[in-house]
Formats: sequence, C-alpha cells, structure tokens
Amino acid sequence: FESKLPGLEPSIFGVMNRISLDAGALNLAQGFPDFGADPELIRLHSEALEEGYNQYAPMSGIYSLREAIAEKTETLYGASYHPETEVTVTAGATQALYTAIAATIRPGDEVIVFKPAYDHYEPSVKAHGGVPVLLQLQGPDFRIDWVAFDAALTASTRMVIINTPHNPSGTVLSREDMEMLETRLRGTNILVLSDEVYEHLVFDGQEHQSVARFPGLRERAFVCASFGKTFHITGWKTGYCLAPELLMQEFRKIHEFAIFCVSHPAQRALKTYLENPDHYLELNDFMQRKRDLFLEAVASSRFTFTPAAGTYFQLLGYQDISEAPDTEFAETLARDKGLAGIPISVFNRNRQDNRQLRFCFAKKDETLKRAGEILSQV
Amino acid sequence: FESKLPGLEPSIFGVMNRISLDAGALNLAQGFPDFGADPELIRLHSEALEEGYNQYAPMSGIYSLREAIAEKTETLYGASYHPETEVTVTAGATQALYTAIAATIRPGDEVIVFKPAYDHYEPSVKAHGGVPVLLQLQGPDFRIDWVAFDAALTASTRMVIINTPHNPSGTVLSREDMEMLETRLRGTNILVLSDEVYEHLVFDGQEHQSVARFPGLRERAFVCASFGKTFHITGWKTGYCLAPELLMQEFRKIHEFAIFCVSHPAQRALKTYLENPDHYLELNDFMQRKRDLFLEAVASSRFTFTPAAGTYFQLLGYQDISEAPDTEFAETLARDKGLAGIPISVFNRNRQDNRQLRFCFAKKDETLKRAGEILSQV
Ligand SMILES: CSCCC(=O)C(=O)O
Ligand SMILES: CSCCC(=O)C(=O)O
Repeated sequence: FESKLPGLEPSIFGVMNRISLDAGALNLAQGFPDFGADPELIRLHSEALEEGYNQYAPMSGIYSLREAIAEKTETLYGASYHPETEVTVTAGATQALYTAIAATIRPGDEVIVFKPAYDHYEPSVKAHGGVPVLLQLQGPDFRIDWVAFDAALTASTRMVIINTPHNPSGTVLSREDMEMLETRLRGTNILVLSDEVYEHLVFDGQEHQSVARFPGLRERAFVCASFGKTFHITGWKTGYCLAPELLMQEFRKIHEFAIFCVSHPAQRALKTYLENPDHYLELNDFMQRKRDLFLEAVASSRFTFTPAAGTYFQLLGYQDISEAPDTEFAETLARDKGLAGIPISVFNRNRQDNRQLRFCFAKKDETLKRAGEILSQV
Repeated sequence: FESKLPGLEPSIFGVMNRISLDAGALNLAQGFPDFGADPELIRLHSEALEEGYNQYAPMSGIYSLREAIAEKTETLYGASYHPETEVTVTAGATQALYTAIAATIRPGDEVIVFKPAYDHYEPSVKAHGGVPVLLQLQGPDFRIDWVAFDAALTASTRMVIINTPHNPSGTVLSREDMEMLETRLRGTNILVLSDEVYEHLVFDGQEHQSVARFPGLRERAFVCASFGKTFHITGWKTGYCLAPELLMQEFRKIHEFAIFCVSHPAQRALKTYLENPDHYLELNDFMQRKRDLFLEAVASSRFTFTPAAGTYFQLLGYQDISEAPDTEFAETLARDKGLAGIPISVFNRNRQDNRQLRFCFAKKDETLKRAGEILSQV
C-alpha cells in the first residue's frame, strides 16, 4: 500500500493537546475558551432540538441564517452578498477553507501562503496537488514584503491565502495592505482565500479590514468565518463562506458531496442568536480586557512581547530565558511547569525558530492569572 | 474563470426537494423520516450542551463514543476495530465516503461503481481525478454480474464501492456475493469503500453482510455508517468510518484538514444512547412494519414492485401506467398529485430509464396511507 499523501503530518494541535493532557497542564495551546458559551445560545439550541429540527437542513444552509449572515456582512462591511447564491453555511471555517481549495486548486497550481500560518492551509493545498509558495513575514510586526510578493507571482499563481486578524502573530492587515493586494491582483484571475475567523477580535480601536470591503478583492474571494470563534462554541462546528455567485457555485459542488449540509438544530439557534448584533459586537471589549489581564500577569516575567492587535492569541518570546528550540521549550514548559502553549516554528517557513510560543487568552481570568504566575517563575 | 469541475451537477435531492416544496407535495423523495427522534436522545443532546461540551472534540472523535462503536461492531459482526487507531467519528456518512475517496484516489485511478448508485459516489471520485467504471445491476433483483465485474478489472483499478443494503433498489448483498468479492480481490491492492448506512434495515429475517465480517475485505476496506439513518437524526450530521490502521491513518490526514472534528455535544449524546443496543436493534421491526403498511396501501394501485429487502426505500414501477420518462413522471406526480419521489434514471448508467420511482417509507403511518391513496388514484 502506497500512501497518496506521504508528506502530510498530523497537526501540532493534536500533539500539544496530548502532551498537555498527559502532563495535566493548563492548556493555553489550541484556540478555544475554557469558559462556557452564553446560556441563551445553549437554550436556543436545546429548543431547536425539542422543536424537531433534527433532519437534513438545506444543502447551503437554512435560508434565514444565510439572510442573517448577509445582513451582518452588509452592516459591518458595506458589502452585499445574496443569501441564495453567495452565502453557504459550513461545518466550521476549517471545512470552508478546505472546500474552497478543493473546488479550485488543480495539480500544479501555485498558492501563496504567508508564514507563519495556521497549519491547515498547506496540507489542504498539497492534498489537491497544489504547490504552496511560502512568504515569510518577519516579527515583531509581521508586515507583508510587497517586493517579495511581486517576485513570487508567476503564470501558475492561482490563489493567495490571507488571514486577518492573523493567527498566530495577533497582527492585523491595514487598509493599505488590502489596497496593495487589490492593486496587484487587478486584471489577473488569481483567487483570494480569506480566513477571517477572528474578525470580531480587533483591539485598541482599529477596524477589521475584511476582504468584503474591497470590490477588487471581493469579486475574486472566498471569505471564511466562524461561529465557533465568535460565540465560544468551537465544538458545534459551525461557520460560513461568502463568495460571488460564480465562485460559490464551484464551492457548493464540493460542499454538497463532501458533507451535504450542516447541523440543522445548531443553525436554528444561530439564526435567532444573530438577530442581536450585541452578541458579536461585545466580544471585542470582552477579549481585549482578557488580553490586558494576561499581559499584566506576564509583565514582570522574563518573556518579551508585542501586545496582540487582534485574535485571541499572544506571542511570548523567551530569547532572554533559554536557547532551546521552541518545540523543546514548549514541551518542557508543559511537562515541568504545567503550562501548554504552541511552538510557532511549526507555522514558519523552513521551521524558522524565533524562540516564541503562542498562548490563547480566551480563558477564565483565574486561568490567565495562574498562567501568568507560572510564566513569571520561568 | 474556468471551472475545475465542469462536469459536476447538483444532486437530484436538491432538485426534487425544490419541486416538492413548490408544489406543497407529500415528500417521500429524500431519505429522512417525517417523525421525531427518540425524546431520550434529544434530552441527552440538550444535557451535553448544558453540561458544557461545547468546545472542540478530539480530531477522531471522543474516545468513549469510538469505544461504543467498536463494541457494537464486535457484537454484531464479530470484527474487532481498535478505537484508538481504527475508528473515526465523521459528520455523517457522506463526509466519511468523500474523505475515504479524497485520501486514496489519484488522478487516473479507476473506481468500480455499481449502478444504480447513490448520486454522491461518482462526483466525489471525479473531483479527485478518478475514473468511475460503471457496472449496471439489472432489476428486479439487482445482482452483481461477476463476469462483467472480472472484465472491468484493470491494472488501474484502485477501489470498488459497494452499498448494502442498497439505495435505491432496496436489495441486499448475500454472503455469497461478499465471498465472490473477497476471492476476486485477494492478492490485489484494490481497496473497498463500503456504504453501510442502512445496516440496521434488513428485513424478512435476512442478515446484514457487513464487509467487517469478511477478513479478506475488512483488511482493505473503509466501512461507512450513519447515526442519522439509524436514529432518525439526519440533521445532526453524525456517522463514522471503520478501517484498518494503515488506511485510517490516510483517512485522518484528510479528515483533520477537511473538518478537524465533529459536533462535541452530539457525540456525548450518542455515546450514552449507544449503551443500550435496543436503540439500534429495534429499528428493523419498526421499519419492516412501515414497509408492509406502505405496500398494502399501494397493493391495489397499478404500480408494480418487488418488496424492499432492506433500506427504507421502495421502488415502484409505472410501466403499466405511462410511457413518460421517469424524471417527467416524477415531476408530474409531485405537481399534479402532490406526491414527491425520486426518478431513478439519474442513478443509472447512461441514465437508463426503467420507469421506476423511489419512495422513502420512513414516514408516519398516516403519511404512508395518504401516499398510498394518491398512488392508487394514478
Ligand atoms: C481546528 S484546530 C484549532 C486551530 C486553532 O484554533 C488554533 O490555531 O489554535
Ligand atoms: C445526503 S442527501 C440524502 C441522500 C439520501 O439519503 C437519499 O438517498 O435520499
């Protein structure tokens, strides 16, 4: 038996969860909260179950939820997507990202990926015979090097994957960045895959620059979003994809045969919950406070940092503490000190190691304080 | 913009659901019940939500559910699958089928598909550059022609897809069929993808011949099963895949990046619900009674039939009634008489039209009686 996918390795999340569990460590590794979702949302889901929404939902999602998604997008980003033809509910953003790639990437197609990157993009591209072209962003501000970008474009470039707010660095793309990209892609048939799962987590008064805001990007883009990240329900596996009709047609060709539809009762609950914009607008202040709390708690430690401008992740550098590779440092921290984070070399080009770990601050205040204590003792 | 997948057309289920909805017809088209799931199962799901199982589940599924699946498989089919390495929880059988194909089929690989077939197999194969090799089964008993099968095997044959109990014909494969297949595949590296979503629906005292029972098949097979079909929860999108470790490793390479994991609260509910084997063993008699009720209700009509030996679908022939093509007949029946079924030419090789429609009898008794009345008036 010869593997079709010999190069694909398990994701770092499984590895670190296992180490964390074995060590009984405080888990700030994978991106999910350790507090509960809003009881109102839970109740809406239970009601949908009891009301009998337990059979197949329509393939693209229940219409009222797609309408609510389109309205939210119109209100926030001034972009109109038609619920019938341009919105599809997905089993989380991961499924949306994979499906967009499956629907468009042919063997030999080049896909530009900015590194560090969420470790699902490249395997998904490779699984379809695509060739990831990796552009490394350099800390502390992880800006795109547009000269390197221009040099990377070839006749085979099929797609650019962007992610703002950015996992794992916590940086956000600016309006100027988006306009630079828009200008460069004008007149090409290069697609954009935009991972915007942290859209409601942009701090210090900045604004989220959704691809939906930029007509020259919107016309060629799949925008992927997550209810899991926004409403603290990563385990419900719900999200969505926005795309212009022609691209959405292609997306649904895969979606239909790869999964057919998404949990019906969860969709009912989300539709009602979305009616109140506070439910997603409140997230920003809530999480900015947690970021600040976490940074206060590590302020007296020997770790170095630039405060995250978005997402619910904070990078901490241990350059002043140890010369160990970050995978080793992360493992030691989990096993000996009881705190799990993600080593970010696994997200970098050529596994470049800057001696930084990523910590998720979507955690209870007490968890963040305890994590700060541990980090301060390192 | 040039489509990667120009040959993929929307599934018949969407088309017939739309017609049925527009016409306000009784919908016996797509395979799902019009009655509720067990209140106990609903309650277990609500409890899991309230107990806080709302974040990511482990990538392959929660361990206790995988254990329960392995136990059920051992008890029913005498086959042992290790929960750690050989069982993965999926977002329905559709996702399991697609993932197994994505993980193993390379461009140019030939995949044997018996027709009529559930209309998801071929698009999934084609989406990965595979070549479906179609073998038509002929009614009324839809047996496999082993001479034709032997003639279809080539050096490029990579996989055989089987489906028992069989959608849409309602036939089941016999022990002899399975042994024929086992003998033929011995010594080859041809894989088997076995769609067994109707495993608990085998009527009149016959036994389900799971691939898991046959060592020579089990060692090369992905077995796909559905909680949706078994527990009347098609809208929860839950099922699983069984495969030997080496194949499951490949399966999970796609599963991880295509969806990552499956609804956590739904998995908690299913784990507890599976503890009582009656919950799946009772299904058979329950549904056989419905089949009999439906057949009684159409006995005096001009439709012809062979009683379904399995699944919750019944084929009805209208050869004595009309010469219209089955797609046309199905549309007229829905629009003018108010009853929706599935025309099965869409499932056949070269759209061969035997003037038969498929009706789902997983419906309330009153629905079945009403459908019988409509059919008797045609
Ligand atoms: C689907 S795995 C979780 C990925 C994520 O949220 C993270 O970056 O931690
Ligand atoms: C996932 S679409 C439903 C398919 C099915 O169950 C059917 O054959 O009706």
